[in-house]
Amino acid sequence: MSLEEQMIALGRDARAGAEALRRADAAQRSAAIRAMAVRLREHAPQVLAANAADLAAATRHHDRLMLDSARFEAIATALEDVAALPDPVGAELARWKRPNGLDIARVRTPIGVIGMIYEARPNVTADAAAICVRSGNAVILRPGSDCFATSQAIHGALAQGLEDAGLPASAVQIVPTTDRAAVGALLEGLGGNLDLVIPRGGKSLVERVQAEARVPVLGHLEGVCHTYVHEAADAAKAAAIVANAKLRRVSVCGATETLLIDRAALPMLPAIAEALRGCELRGDAEAAAIVPMLPAHEADWGTEYLAPVLSIRTVSDWRQAAAHIARYGTGHTEAIITEDADVAESFLGQVDSAIVLWNASTQFADGGEFGFGAEIGIATGKLHARGPVGPDQLTSFKYVVRGSGQTRS
Amino acid sequence: MSLEEQMIALGRDARAGAEALRRADAAQRSAAIRAMAVRLREHAPQVLAANAADLAAATRHHDRLMLDSARFEAIATALEDVAALPDPVGAELARWKRPNGLDIARVRTPIGVIGMIYEARPNVTADAAAICVRSGNAVILRPGSDCFATSQAIHGALAQGLEDAGLPASAVQIVPTTDRAAVGALLEGLGGNLDLVIPRGGKSLVERVQAEARVPVLGHLEGVCHTYVHEAADAAKAAAIVANAKLRRVSVCGATETLLIDRAALPMLPAIAEALRGCELRGDAEAAAIVPMLPAHEADWGTEYLAPVLSIRTVSDWRQAAAHIARYGTGHTEAIITEDADVAESFLGQVDSAIVLWNASTQFADGGEFGFGAEIGIATGKLHARGPVGPDQLTSFKYVVRGSGQTRS
Repeated sequence: MSLEEQMIALGRDARAGAEALRRADAAQRSAAIRAMAVRLREHAPQVLAANAADLAAATRHHDRLMLDSARFEAIATALEDVAALPDPVGAELARWKRPNGLDIARVRTPIGVIGMIYEARPNVTADAAAICVRSGNAVILRPGSDCFATSQAIHGALAQGLEDAGLPASAVQIVPTTDRAAVGALLEGLGGNLDLVIPRGGKSLVERVQAEARVPVLGHLEGVCHTYVHEAADAAKAAAIVANAKLRRVSVCGATETLLIDRAALPMLPAIAEALRGCELRGDAEAAAIVPMLPAHEADWGTEYLAPVLSIRTVSDWRQAAAHIARYGTGHTEAIITEDADVAESFLGQVDSAIVLWNASTQFADGGEFGFGAEIGIATGKLHARGPVGPDQLTSFKYVVRGSGQTRS
Repeated sequence: MSLEEQMIALGRDARAGAEALRRADAAQRSAAIRAMAVRLREHAPQVLAANAADLAAATRHHDRLMLDSARFEAIATALEDVAALPDPVGAELARWKRPNGLDIARVRTPIGVIGMIYEARPNVTADAAAICVRSGNAVILRPGSDCFATSQAIHGALAQGLEDAGLPASAVQIVPTTDRAAVGALLEGLGGNLDLVIPRGGKSLVERVQAEARVPVLGHLEGVCHTYVHEAADAAKAAAIVANAKLRRVSVCGATETLLIDRAALPMLPAIAEALRGCELRGDAEAAAIVPMLPAHEADWGTEYLAPVLSIRTVSDWRQAAAHIARYGTGHTEAIITEDADVAESFLGQVDSAIVLWNASTQFADGGEFGFGAEIGIATGKLHARGPVGPDQLTSFKYVVRGSGQTRS
């Protein structure tokens, strides 16, 4: 069988798996995810051995790739957490009655078959499988070659868990090769048996998927996130929030990359810089006149550093801050720090990013922090889902109309 | 300027128009749609003259294309209806508080710039413009060549209405040529200035758009809709509903094309056939043994007749009916006729179409009948929107998070 034929067969099997998942009930989907956790723990030796092999072969990303027993345990626990989440399938989103007596309900349904294309993060294998099963969707996993052995070992355990719960292993499949042509086949849509592709990884992966996919894409582009300190900010909150937004973890997509600060708020800058100790600052001339720092260049405004580096720009008011964000931001997450409720609401209303915050850290951009229980990524597009993508966001809906013999005039 | 450059400029202008619409408030968007209706009525002579020219040049679709004064008035009235609809932008879809005190709201936002590609239906020009303005989106209209002059005349009036209300005409633009290369430019995404394409027309148009688009598509594929008469159906309801579902208007996508009937319900078939007088029946051998009719062939089960023709298939139970629908249906609209609530709920739960009805006509598949006030089409995909697409369905959302100094641990 050629790779192309193999991939088409994978899609056909996934469609059958999706049908089985859709027809299962919430209890069976929960049982399957719990069984996946049990089997994963049983397979710890195999998974860790595979990870050692991946690590030995890898030339980069060792930290992202490495599983120790604590990280392994966190993956298994995350499965149990998803098993305990409310099942979204069949949930009523709205219900209303028409003057002619028709009773119309909008209820959640699974999407179908989801393709997950990701890079060297072994936890995504289990997270994506659990979130897809929770939402009634089959998934085809395509891990990066760096974590291929680890992902295969994890997948073997998950497949057994599905079968333990009476569901077909075809509901969670893994592409059996690191051949990049397999990605091409996924992007072509597997002969109509792939409903959605989710790329999770670096900018070049996401851009390739968005450019080439013949199926809908739930993309997660980079996060060039901003924190804006308004002149009416509380100085202590500003320092604490900016430091947290930048430094809590510098490698997450919700980390702030640019500080925008009102000219009138520049007296707060020394305390903010003090809270940012250890962070490289690159600012415009006005900021650098207050706190010595490197000069920022045009390229800085559009850069996702994912490192302890912060660019700083002085603005005259919230409108200029919003204009800067519209021009250089990626529509991910932005915050305003102010005690002026009117200005805060104007900023929240006018800035068109997936997440806008008032007096809180941009690092809250996370499905867990939103109460979604789990997330598969943060979508930066505006279609279907936007922001953290959890089980609810991986559903579609249908209209259920209950009548008593109505005909249309 | 080459056509390609012209189209890119159109996209850039549309982005500016979208920004203006997004920043406008609900009252201004309502005023703009009302002003569009006023200007349209003023332009009645020009629009009807353009329509006469289109009709004279057209070799087909004269009925769909033709505007008389009643149809013209219906278009203007539809604008006023949309002006009176609630404005979706900024509406709170959900709001909850986290244990750390963060107050999270999900609020509707416009999508941005929408491309509308349609065939010979002059009313779509005004309907699409009004629904897009209502939802804060700019629109680029690309009418079929058959109704090009009519659509240009209508568009000229709408653009004046926008300006009357202080909004830029770039919020509603029309592709200034019938050159098919313009469609290609739209499908390429106008250099990042097109967020969504909505094709509305025949199967070949929709399929071309879905195959070639580099931007998300809200597709409306054909409706091969089914009505299933269960053995526990009320015979009078069955006859009335089947006749209405097939014959009320045969050319709409929600018209039933196939009747599925339980073997045990075949005694109801003569009365159903009587109610369907004037309709050509094509059935399987069991149906034809009860009521004389033409034989149905395999191709009939997948055909959207859009004509007074009905295919009839005998099934043993609701599961076989659901299996037939899964195999031959297009995921549009299906109905079950029964007095057995358990069977009805099983059917409603298991059939995965955009709209499923119990004891009601499939011809209710319509945004107006759902209470949406207006619709731009009926989406048959599962991403973003499904079923009738009104102003609410043309929005995205963002998360607005209000804090009091929270940082993430």
